[in-house]
Amino acid sequence: MTDRDETAEFLPKFDEKGLLSAIAQDAESGEVLMLAHMNREALDRTLESGEAHFWSRSRAALWKKGETSGNILRVRAVLVDCDQDALLLKVEAAGPACHTGRRTCFYREVGQDGLSFTG
Amino acid sequence: MTDRDETAEFLPKFDEKGLLSAIAQDAESGEVLMLAHMNREALDRTLESGEAHFWSRSRAALWKKGETSGNILRVRAVLVDCDQDALLLKVEAAGPACHTGRRTCFYREVGQDGLSFTG
Repeated sequence: MTDRDETAEFLPKFDEKGLLSAIAQDAESGEVLMLAHMNREALDRTLESGEAHFWSRSRAALWKKGETSGNILRVRAVLVDCDQDALLLKVEAAGPACHTGRRTCFYREVGQDGLSFTG
Repeated sequence: MTDRDETAEFLPKFDEKGLLSAIAQDAESGEVLMLAHMNREALDRTLESGEAHFWSRSRAALWKKGETSGNILRVRAVLVDCDQDALLLKVEAAGPACHTGRRTCFYREVGQDGLSFTG
């Protein structure tokens, strides 16, 4: 175990790129909607505004989820894991979380012969 | 959208370190248990054995979850996200998923004055 495990101090551990992982989970249904990344600024804005902000690795830009689509994620609670390098956001989704228009980004199941669509 | 979004081909996208993120979620309760990383070998072993294997970034070693503790994660389903760089494992946990002995690694909530323990 490490110091981060049992402390009541919030000591988010960003990786060498200044990022940590954030899972968004529907606060009501428990459905996992998406996994994205946050830098310090995205985390601060999320905590201040109560709306999920992420860091887009592909665009190298801060990104408020739903800024263009309107499908924001209202954050009801933020949990942190034992070593404080991952967050779990309990959210209310204003619309589909996935850019494909699906409720969740996890809409395909891995099988023997490739992927099958579940959503 | 990209080619990975709508294909039925499993094309896991490993990052420059050869890793992708894997979320373990209790298949029954929906509780998110942990977030860890997989390299190609961890993924292959997980799919072959039906038991979760990860890559430990801190120890730089392949790691079968529960190998020493006995708290293995039986994998009921593996879902992949839109851009195929994250997996969602629906699991049955043989015991606490967290190395601290807690059911989930997400046992603290971020608040104004630090963390409060929820588990």
